[in-house]
Amino acid sequence: MPNSGSESSFDLLSELDALSRRLDPGPEDRRQSTRLVAEHVHAYLDALPDAPARFDRPDGGSRIREIPVSEDGIGLEAALDLLREHVDAVGLNPTSGRFFGYIPGGGLFTSGLGDWMAATTNRYAGVFFASPGAVRMENALIRWMADLIGFPETAGGYLAAGGSLANQTAIVAAREAKGVEGAAIERSVVYLTDHAHHCILKALGIAGLRRSVVRTVPVDERYRMRAEALQELLSTDRENGLTPFMIVASAGTTNTGSVDPLDAIADLAREYDAWYHVDAAYGGFFRLCAETFPETADLLEAMSRADSVVMDPHKTLFVPYGTGALIVRDRRHLLDTHSMDADYMQDTRSADHEDSPADLSPELTKHFRGLRLWLPLQAHGVAAFRAALSEKLLLARYFHRRIGELNGFEAGPEPDLSVVTFRYVPAAGDPDDFNRRLAGRLQRDGRVFLSSTQIEGRFTLRLAAVCFRSHREHVDEAIDILRETAAELEAER
Amino acid sequence: MPNSGSESSFDLLSELDALSRRLDPGPEDRRQSTRLVAEHVHAYLDALPDAPARFDRPDGGSRIREIPVSEDGIGLEAALDLLREHVDAVGLNPTSGRFFGYIPGGGLFTSGLGDWMAATTNRYAGVFFASPGAVRMENALIRWMADLIGFPETAGGYLAAGGSLANQTAIVAAREAKGVEGAAIERSVVYLTDHAHHCILKALGIAGLRRSVVRTVPVDERYRMRAEALQELLSTDRENGLTPFMIVASAGTTNTGSVDPLDAIADLAREYDAWYHVDAAYGGFFRLCAETFPETADLLEAMSRADSVVMDPHKTLFVPYGTGALIVRDRRHLLDTHSMDADYMQDTRSADHEDSPADLSPELTKHFRGLRLWLPLQAHGVAAFRAALSEKLLLARYFHRRIGELNGFEAGPEPDLSVVTFRYVPAAGDPDDFNRRLAGRLQRDGRVFLSSTQIEGRFTLRLAAVCFRSHREHVDEAIDILRETAAELEAER
Repeated sequence: MPNSGSESSFDLLSELDALSRRLDPGPEDRRQSTRLVAEHVHAYLDALPDAPARFDRPDGGSRIREIPVSEDGIGLEAALDLLREHVDAVGLNPTSGRFFGYIPGGGLFTSGLGDWMAATTNRYAGVFFASPGAVRMENALIRWMADLIGFPETAGGYLAAGGSLANQTAIVAAREAKGVEGAAIERSVVYLTDHAHHCILKALGIAGLRRSVVRTVPVDERYRMRAEALQELLSTDRENGLTPFMIVASAGTTNTGSVDPLDAIADLAREYDAWYHVDAAYGGFFRLCAETFPETADLLEAMSRADSVVMDPHKTLFVPYGTGALIVRDRRHLLDTHSMDADYMQDTRSADHEDSPADLSPELTKHFRGLRLWLPLQAHGVAAFRAALSEKLLLARYFHRRIGELNGFEAGPEPDLSVVTFRYVPAAGDPDDFNRRLAGRLQRDGRVFLSSTQIEGRFTLRLAAVCFRSHREHVDEAIDILRETAAELEAER
Repeated sequence: MPNSGSESSFDLLSELDALSRRLDPGPEDRRQSTRLVAEHVHAYLDALPDAPARFDRPDGGSRIREIPVSEDGIGLEAALDLLREHVDAVGLNPTSGRFFGYIPGGGLFTSGLGDWMAATTNRYAGVFFASPGAVRMENALIRWMADLIGFPETAGGYLAAGGSLANQTAIVAAREAKGVEGAAIERSVVYLTDHAHHCILKALGIAGLRRSVVRTVPVDERYRMRAEALQELLSTDRENGLTPFMIVASAGTTNTGSVDPLDAIADLAREYDAWYHVDAAYGGFFRLCAETFPETADLLEAMSRADSVVMDPHKTLFVPYGTGALIVRDRRHLLDTHSMDADYMQDTRSADHEDSPADLSPELTKHFRGLRLWLPLQAHGVAAFRAALSEKLLLARYFHRRIGELNGFEAGPEPDLSVVTFRYVPAAGDPDDFNRRLAGRLQRDGRVFLSSTQIEGRFTLRLAAVCFRSHREHVDEAIDILRETAAELEAER
C-alpha cells in the first residue's frame, strides 16, 4: 500500500496510468468511435420518418438492467447495440413528427452537436471567471428571452435543468421577496387554477411552504383563470387577515394550452401586492409569432408585467430535454437567495463583468446548457423558429377544424395555442369508456401518439402540435388514424 | 390572420413548413454538419496536450455578447469559429491534464458521444412509461452506486443536474423525514464543519430552513470533523431543548479533500436520532479503489451508515459537468416528498415496473443524463475507472512528497484523498502576500492551473489531482513550474 514514505511505491503509477488511459482514447480511436456513433445517429434519423411514435413493447428496456456495468465493460459497439434495441426502440418516441402527446419536445439535430461539443470541451458554465464565453452565452440567451418578454434592464435569470426546477427557483425567490417564513406561512395564500402544472404544488412543498393556503381559482369555458373570481378570493382573503402572497398564472396550460388573462391578473397582483409568477414553460416562446399571429402574441403580452417567468427551451425552442429558463424582473431577488461565497472560490471573485449563473440559481457546477440552444439559434436563425412555432399554432387550428368536422368527434374549445382537446361521442354507450379504449388502442398501434387527460371529469383526448418535425401531413395522418380506429371500435360493439 | 373559419388560411402552412424545415436538416446536410463538428471536436482534442490550463485573456468571450442571435443566424461554420475563439480559448480549461484547480472535472470523450445520442434520440428519462430503457439505465446506475456505498435494497435515488441540487434534495428529504417545519425550525440544529461545501448552507436557505441553528463543529489538524466536539455540541443542544436534526459529514472536502470520521459520526447520529447526510460529491467514488488503497476505502466505508449520500459523477467518474447523484438509504423519503399526480399524466400510471426519477426528485422532464455515464462505463469497464482514481490518489501522495522536499515549500497534511495543500515560505516578507502573488502569476502563466484557498486564515495553494488526463508527467510539470515561479518571485524582491 503506497504512502509518501517510499520511492518505490510510486512505481505503481505507470501501471495505473496505462489502464486509466483507456478512458482517454487516442486520435485514431476517437475518430473510430465517432464514426460508429455517427452511424448510429444517422441511422436513427434516416429511419425516423417511418418510425412509430410509440413502441409497444411491454418488456421494453429490461436488457439494460440485465447487463450491468462490469470490470471490463462490453465495448462501445455492444453498448450501441443495446441502446438501439433497448432504449431507442422502446417506449415513446418524442422525436417523431407524429408525436403529439403531453407537451412534445423534439431535440434539434444541431442541439445534439452542441451537446457533443459542450461535453468534450467541458467548459464550466456556472462561474464567469471559469468560462467567460460560456457564461456570456447563457446571459445573452437570458437577455434575449427577457427582451422577448418585455422585461426591463433589471431582469436576470438562468438556464435551468427544466421547468420544474425553474418554477421552484421562482417560488423560492417569491418567498424571500415577500418574507414568507415562520408563522407567516400559514397566513400566506397562493392562487392558481387546477390547470396549473403540478410542479408548482410540488415546488411549494420543496420550498417549505406546504402549510401555505392554496386557492384554486375557477376557470372559464376555455379553462382560463377567471379574473373576477380571483379578485373575489383575494378580497375575501385579505378581509380575513390572510396575505395574498403569490399568483401563479399559466401561459399555456399542459392540459389544454390555455393562457390565463395575464393583464387582468397583473392588475390584481399589483393591487394586492402579490408576487406575480407566469408559468410560460410551454407557451412563452409563442411571443415569437407576433407577426403571423398578433392575437396570440397579445395573449402573452402581459408576461412583461410579471415578477418572474418560466419558459422551457426544451419545449417550444425544440432543444433536447434538460433546458428550462427562469427570468426574473429584478435579478436582485435571485442574487439575494443564491449568491454565496467560500474560501475555495476566492480566485473567482475578480473581474466579474457578468453575473455568474451560480449567483442567480441553486446550481454551482452545471451542464453547459447554453450551447445546445445558442448553436441552433445561430446556425438556423430565429426566423426558422418563428416559422416553426407559427406552423404549430396553425396546425392546431387546422386539426381543431378538421376533427370537429369528422363524424362522431367533438372538438373542445378553439385553442389558445397549439393544444387541441377533443373526444369521440359514440352512438351509444359510455363516452368515457369509449375514449379510454380509443386512447389505449391508438397507443398500442403507435403510429401516432396522443395523450389523454380529464377535463371537468370527462376522459378527453388531446393533440399537442409542438414537435418541430410535425407538419400538415402528420396531422392528416393522425386524423386518418383517429377516424379508422374510432370506426373499428364502433364496429366491434 | 388565420383562424379555423377559412380553408384558404391554411395555405400559409406550406410556407411556414418550408421555413421551419431549416431546423430539421436532411440526410446530406446532417452528415455535412457532423463532419464540421467532428473536425472541431478532434482539432480541440488533438491540440489539448499542448493547450494551456488557463487562457489569460481578460476580454475573453466578449464577442459572444456582440454577436446576438438574429433572424437569419450566422450559420454553423461561423458559429463554430466563434466557439473556438471565444469559448474554447478563454478562461479555464478543465479538460487539461494540467488542470488541478477546485475539484477538476474532465469530460470523457465517450460521455460526449453519449450526450450527442441522448440529445438526438431525446428519450424522456423522467418517467418509466415514457422511456423504460432510459429509466432502467438511470436506476441501474443508482443501484450500482448504492452497492458501492453499501446501502440495502431499500435504497433509491436519482441522477441530479449537479451536487448542489443533489444536496438540496437530501436536505429536503431530511426536513420531511424529521418533520422540521413551523416553530420546530428554530429549535432544529444542523451540524457541519466550516470545510463543508457552501452549497449546504445555500440549500438550507432554499429549503426554508435559514432559521434553523447551524453548529460549526471544530476540526482536527487534518481538517476532519472532531467527533468528540460534535458529541459535546449534540449533548449541550439536547440539554438546552434543541433538536439535533441533521449532521452533514464531508467525504472529501473541497478545501483539502479531508474525510470526516464517518463511522464515529454515524454512532452519534444514531444516538441522537439525527438525519445523517454524507456529502461525498468529490470523495465517494474513491470507494472503487479498495483493492489498491484499502485504507482510503476504509475511510469511506461508513457511508453505508448514512441516511443519504451525494456523489458527483461529473467529478470522480469524469463525466462532463452536469451530473450529480443522490442516493437515500430508504427511497420512501424521496417518494414522500416528490411523487405527485396530474390528470395529464394519467397514461403514464400503468405498468410501472420501476421507480420513475420524477417520483424521486424535484424534476419531471430531465436531461437523459444516464447515457453520458452508462456509455463510458460500458465501453471502457469499471476497471479503468478504478485505475484512474487510484492513480489520482497516488499522484496526490507523490506531489505531497515532492513539494515537501522542494526548497522553500511547505506541504500541508498528508492527503486523505487527492487534494494536497501547500504554500511557499519566503525567506523574508509576508507569506500570504508571497503566495497570493505566486498564485496570481501561475494563473496568468496558465500552463498549469491551481486554485487557492484560506486555511486557518492563511493563504494556501492546493493541487487537486482529479482530471482523468492528469498523469505523473503533468504533476512533474506543475512542480517544475512552481519551483521556477517561486524562484522568479524571490529574485524580484
